[in-house]
Amino acid sequence: MTNTEQSDTSTHSTKGSYVTDGKEFTRDTQYIETRITRDGADGYPVEAGRYRLIAARACPWANRSIIVRRLLGLEDAISLGTPGPTHDKRSWTFDLDPDGRDPVLGIERLQEAFFKRDPDYPRGITVPAIVDTTTGAVVTNNFPQITLDFSTEWKDFHRDGAPDLLPEHLREEIDTVNKRVFTEVNNGVYRCGFAGSQEAYDAAYDRLFTALDWLEERLTTQRYLVGETITEADVRLFTTLVRFDPVYHGHFKCNRNKLTEMPALWGYARDLFQTPGFGDTVDFEQIKQHYYIVHEDINPTGIVPKGPDLSGWTTEHGREALGGKPFGDGTPPEAP
Amino acid sequence: MTNTEQSDTSTHSTKGSYVTDGKEFTRDTQYIETRITRDGADGYPVEAGRYRLIAARACPWANRSIIVRRLLGLEDAISLGTPGPTHDKRSWTFDLDPDGRDPVLGIERLQEAFFKRDPDYPRGITVPAIVDTTTGAVVTNNFPQITLDFSTEWKDFHRDGAPDLLPEHLREEIDTVNKRVFTEVNNGVYRCGFAGSQEAYDAAYDRLFTALDWLEERLTTQRYLVGETITEADVRLFTTLVRFDPVYHGHFKCNRNKLTEMPALWGYARDLFQTPGFGDTVDFEQIKQHYYIVHEDINPTGIVPKGPDLSGWTTEHGREALGGKPFGDGTPPEAP
Repeated sequence: MTNTEQSDTSTHSTKGSYVTDGKEFTRDTQYIETRITRDGADGYPVEAGRYRLIAARACPWANRSIIVRRLLGLEDAISLGTPGPTHDKRSWTFDLDPDGRDPVLGIERLQEAFFKRDPDYPRGITVPAIVDTTTGAVVTNNFPQITLDFSTEWKDFHRDGAPDLLPEHLREEIDTVNKRVFTEVNNGVYRCGFAGSQEAYDAAYDRLFTALDWLEERLTTQRYLVGETITEADVRLFTTLVRFDPVYHGHFKCNRNKLTEMPALWGYARDLFQTPGFGDTVDFEQIKQHYYIVHEDINPTGIVPKGPDLSGWTTEHGREALGGKPFGDGTPPEAP
Repeated sequence: MTNTEQSDTSTHSTKGSYVTDGKEFTRDTQYIETRITRDGADGYPVEAGRYRLIAARACPWANRSIIVRRLLGLEDAISLGTPGPTHDKRSWTFDLDPDGRDPVLGIERLQEAFFKRDPDYPRGITVPAIVDTTTGAVVTNNFPQITLDFSTEWKDFHRDGAPDLLPEHLREEIDTVNKRVFTEVNNGVYRCGFAGSQEAYDAAYDRLFTALDWLEERLTTQRYLVGETITEADVRLFTTLVRFDPVYHGHFKCNRNKLTEMPALWGYARDLFQTPGFGDTVDFEQIKQHYYIVHEDINPTGIVPKGPDLSGWTTEHGREALGGKPFGDGTPPEAP
């Protein structure tokens, strides 16, 4: 499967300012592309217990990896470290852990693991990142590849009943959908929020809602994005949708309407939220704190909104009527 | 009728920053309280053609005076000058007028009319303001009194069929409702948006939505706020409601829910919007530009959101079923 997001980086990164005056927002484009594979071609073979996924619950790109790890039952094979929702210009930090240190890696700042890999590491410190616990060094922070490799390279460690998130016969379609969802939606909300001019924002808003209208139509007649079961495509869309009303609607000015005002997308998002492995990875408070506190250049007061009312997420969605089985012939993961 | 808002001023004012770090937002409290009256007690008798109302369409406090002038048919007696939606620290300006000057007063900045009244005028330059065209000096900027005097002191100039916005037998109730609406809603949204600490914001948010829940309940069983016809109380609530989703929801973080998510309030707001004299005074673009451009300390990029979709404002509201007659035994004003 082509990595449809290869040429982009992300705002899981730590940097000083987010808006560039007069400019359209463009992502940084370089990651550590080393892969952990079955054949160990890059020097890092799959091995239970050796690697630690560092993924902030706040971050949508990291949230993907937490969901896929849960869905596939990789918890015993790959441990999880979770930086807090905020960070400074230097690094994500383990401020929620006892003594402010990751209990396995023993570090206070994720930056330390990047510097172990490269003492002169020049780019943003991003999540998700996978760290080799034998050396304490980052193996990869190449987020779109991480979840694909969880599905394909780590197959021997999947739980019984794990879903196939990348069914071979649907890969091409998943690829196509992922590409559009990434450029227009996952990244589209950032293009609105970090626009450096009114013109760039206006164009970004139109692109975003054109794509959401396409998704609304698509999901009116089918339960999942591709095929009859949950796939990688659903994971990637979900992490943006779950942040839409709490953050993107107001903070990023993606405000033609709330997610709750698009019936198919809202039903779809609730359906996934209520599916084991999705909603149980979401921490709305951390999500809001992350965006509203970190982006000082668009929210200088640092005040975090109390809204929106989130009680709707657990209401009935009626999407079962569209058919489909979330886990196909498999089973849901157990409660965390 | 007691002026229930006497002890407050407003953010129709021009000043440099809006948020005071660590502090709850409190309004400035002094106006030029000179009144234009039938008996001319303050030196300014009512007189057709002599006074000019300066009121920016963007500003909710000024919008009140534009609505009441329309409802009562005072257009021929009191002319209207409209500053543009944005202003700088010094003054509202007539940037929308030919050559950037008010065509009657001949001034570029409203400040000039305040300085004609008092060369050392020390406070914010606010709208609405009423200017005596014979001298070019501001008579009053005391916004809550202005609309009351339109109803009572200018009665001889009301159009045929003008509604009674202050029915004598309802004055006490109007007064009580106005007071709560002012402190909790009209000013409550500003208390959220200009909060200088998380604690001040959290408290302001709770106060605001407590009041909106009260109004939602009240308006579930009655068409208007007080009595069976439109009154001054409806005008005062309307100007905040019409700005709620376009501005207060996102910009001021009043985001428990949108107005459109409160069925009675949303029906009530649409009912008024569709009543001649209300919606025809509203300019959503100017409203959004005002808040998002002027408040640099909470929206430093100055980018104005394209949303929300406003097409709902003209949809059926079904409020006629609750009874009531907007103009009582009177008639609506003609189209502007």
